[in-house]
Amino acid sequence: MITLSSDFGCAYPAAMKGVLLSRTDARLVDVDHEFPRQDVRATAFWLREVLPFFPPAVHLVVVDPGVGTDRSALVVRAGDHALVGPDNGVLLPAARRIAADTPIRTFEVDYDQADPTTADPTAVTWPPRPSSSTFHGRDLFAPAAARVHELGVDGFEADEAFSPTDDVVDLRLPDPDIDDSGALGEALAVDSFGNVITNIPGTVLADHLGDHVKVNGVWASTRQAYDDVDPGHRVVTVGSHGNVELAVNQGRGDETFGVRAGGRVRVTW
Amino acid sequence: MITLSSDFGCAYPAAMKGVLLSRTDARLVDVDHEFPRQDVRATAFWLREVLPFFPPAVHLVVVDPGVGTDRSALVVRAGDHALVGPDNGVLLPAARRIAADTPIRTFEVDYDQADPTTADPTAVTWPPRPSSSTFHGRDLFAPAAARVHELGVDGFEADEAFSPTDDVVDLRLPDPDIDDSGALGEALAVDSFGNVITNIPGTVLADHLGDHVKVNGVWASTRQAYDDVDPGHRVVTVGSHGNVELAVNQGRGDETFGVRAGGRVRVTW
Amino acid sequence: MITLSSDFGCAYPAAMKGVLLSRTDARLVDVDHEFPRQDVRATAFWLREVLPFFPPAVHLVVVDPGVGTDRSALVVRAGDHALVGPDNGVLLPAARRIAADTPIRTFEVDYDQADPTTADPTAVTWPPRPSSSTFHGRDLFAPAAARVHELGVDGFEADEAFSPTDDVVDLRLPDPDIDDSGALGEALAVDSFGNVITNIPGTVLADHLGDHVKVNGVWASTRQAYDDVDPGHRVVTVGSHGNVELAVNQGRGDETFGVRAGGRVRVTW
Repeated sequence: MITLSSDFGCAYPAAMKGVLLSRTDARLVDVDHEFPRQDVRATAFWLREVLPFFPPAVHLVVVDPGVGTDRSALVVRAGDHALVGPDNGVLLPAARRIAADTPIRTFEVDYDQADPTTADPTAVTWPPRPSSSTFHGRDLFAPAAARVHELGVDGFEADEAFSPTDDVVDLRLPDPDIDDSGALGEALAVDSFGNVITNIPGTVLADHLGDHVKVNGVWASTRQAYDDVDPGHRVVTVGSHGNVELAVNQGRGDETFGVRAGGRVRVTW
Repeated sequence: MITLSSDFGCAYPAAMKGVLLSRTDARLVDVDHEFPRQDVRATAFWLREVLPFFPPAVHLVVVDPGVGTDRSALVVRAGDHALVGPDNGVLLPAARRIAADTPIRTFEVDYDQADPTTADPTAVTWPPRPSSSTFHGRDLFAPAAARVHELGVDGFEADEAFSPTDDVVDLRLPDPDIDDSGALGEALAVDSFGNVITNIPGTVLADHLGDHVKVNGVWASTRQAYDDVDPGHRVVTVGSHGNVELAVNQGRGDETFGVRAGGRVRVTW
Repeated sequence: MITLSSDFGCAYPAAMKGVLLSRTDARLVDVDHEFPRQDVRATAFWLREVLPFFPPAVHLVVVDPGVGTDRSALVVRAGDHALVGPDNGVLLPAARRIAADTPIRTFEVDYDQADPTTADPTAVTWPPRPSSSTFHGRDLFAPAAARVHELGVDGFEADEAFSPTDDVVDLRLPDPDIDDSGALGEALAVDSFGNVITNIPGTVLADHLGDHVKVNGVWASTRQAYDDVDPGHRVVTVGSHGNVELAVNQGRGDETFGVRAGGRVRVTW
């Protein structure tokens, strides 16, 4: 199984699917192609939340503001899974969550052996020769994902195009500051409903459920479910990721709380 | 085959896919994940229009403003199909259309037997223990759909976690008032083109095709195809669902007619 | 394998999938359903760029502003592929690119033999009887794609419902004017990032990479990668399609350059 994640929106994901289907019979599963555009951190958060639910798979991930520069292409081995994508940190939080207590291992994809005379981007060669500086999802990462799938998560290291490396761009989602009076964190992402997902662990709300807390200075109800408040009202809850979430029942939390991805969130009680 | 329908937009559908793929080899087919957000009635309309085209399948549907409250989780048996989702009526119009002249049967999913000590949301257990109050699509409905698929539409009733019940929230799409001078109905949904889909049966236009009718007091051409009027012009037609539709050729009917989902539509001739 | 492309957005693609799944066990692959709405030329461009990456397949394409009028339904044979969709030119640029040096062949789908007494749109008949004037993707094209898949790209011509024809609407993407001082072309499409894709071949930039060019009178850097300029800055590059592309690093080129699909692009140096 190969899963596909990107911030591509329309059309480009299909080119990656075409490349994959030309190289493998693997089952393809779209994770999403509307991840926040060029937002490596928010995508890293989402992948950490959704990829661990999958059975062992090769996960192709392309959110890649540095496409065409000299940033590397990575394969990350995490448990029975492998993640393939750019070396900008987007793969690591999900890889660590999947690997749990086992170490992850990182490999750089070496495309130098590519035959430079192959000009046709649809040519099925390995390693591939990138025919563009703007779409490595199609030209490099999809062929690499197909190759990892072909050799298996246990076997891909045998291909000398995959070289072990520890020199990778790390990304760790920020930790909040928590004390007796409250927590200071930030918004990791905003979902399609407008719910603001913070980095503050939901456990801080344990003593306040059914009560109120202040968010950035404004009181809001603390409840278990969105619908535990009237439509249009603010509700602070624990989201499906286990973190504090700022929502409005049948409305948009981001607009009402005035917080966007990356924004500061101070919860006090 | 398991189909997936939700109003989730980005990322959350992938968590449901991961849960399903961890529990079943069933073919997965995305119906859509951009159903009108939190709009149970419009989604019920769309499902009634699209699910009957599918071969026998388990249909997982999550448009669930009441997530985390005490609303039940349902399985509806309709002919050779089963629909799984929240007890808010969203499943029923599609189920009745699929079942045609046979009765539908409804079952409540009983999660009380879940092992409360399993804290890991990725654990593959049955019945599952919900690890969140905000994402039952992942925690309850997807496991239930996988279980129904595993036992079969004919066999799932043998699992005592599925209890027959008639105490369900009903939802019926409203009927219009029709007399000799016209019809008074409402907009059930607006599609991605901006076409306004009403609950008025297209048969009322039979004597007026090629002519004009008044919609909320303004004249518009009545034609068979959008392109039977010039670009930018209003056209009242019979949509693919058999109902009167308010459109603008190569434009947006909702804006030009000034009607949104739920809005009043009076057609006179 | 059957691929699906449309400008349908929500819900309607699922009806086509249901029809296909009721008629065939073929693997289904979504190309995209957010192609620029009713924009035959931009969709033709995108399909030309993505479909050639697929292995041999039947490609169902529905961008069809003339639905319900007397425009024909076509099947285009291109190499080992077949494309099915409306006779408005949308299929031809992709078909010619796939066919490379071999001729394409075009067939009209003859639905006149359809049994007019079959009123149920979910009935699995061939040829089908269209039950609507507004959704031929569901009523005509999807059944035709399933039929072509069933008989095979080499065999579908044996079905007398497919009649050879040369009387088809052609569509050719425009060529730019190029001279020693620059190129005058136009924007074929804008992608989800806001990058403006022109019809000017990237080769014109070969002598100017690392330098600057004027676009519609305003200077911009000419670079290989988006990230070769600072965030927020204009960059003129060669896109993955081989054409000149107007972009802004981590921003939107369409807004900054003030060019939309169809707009005039004059590059001078």
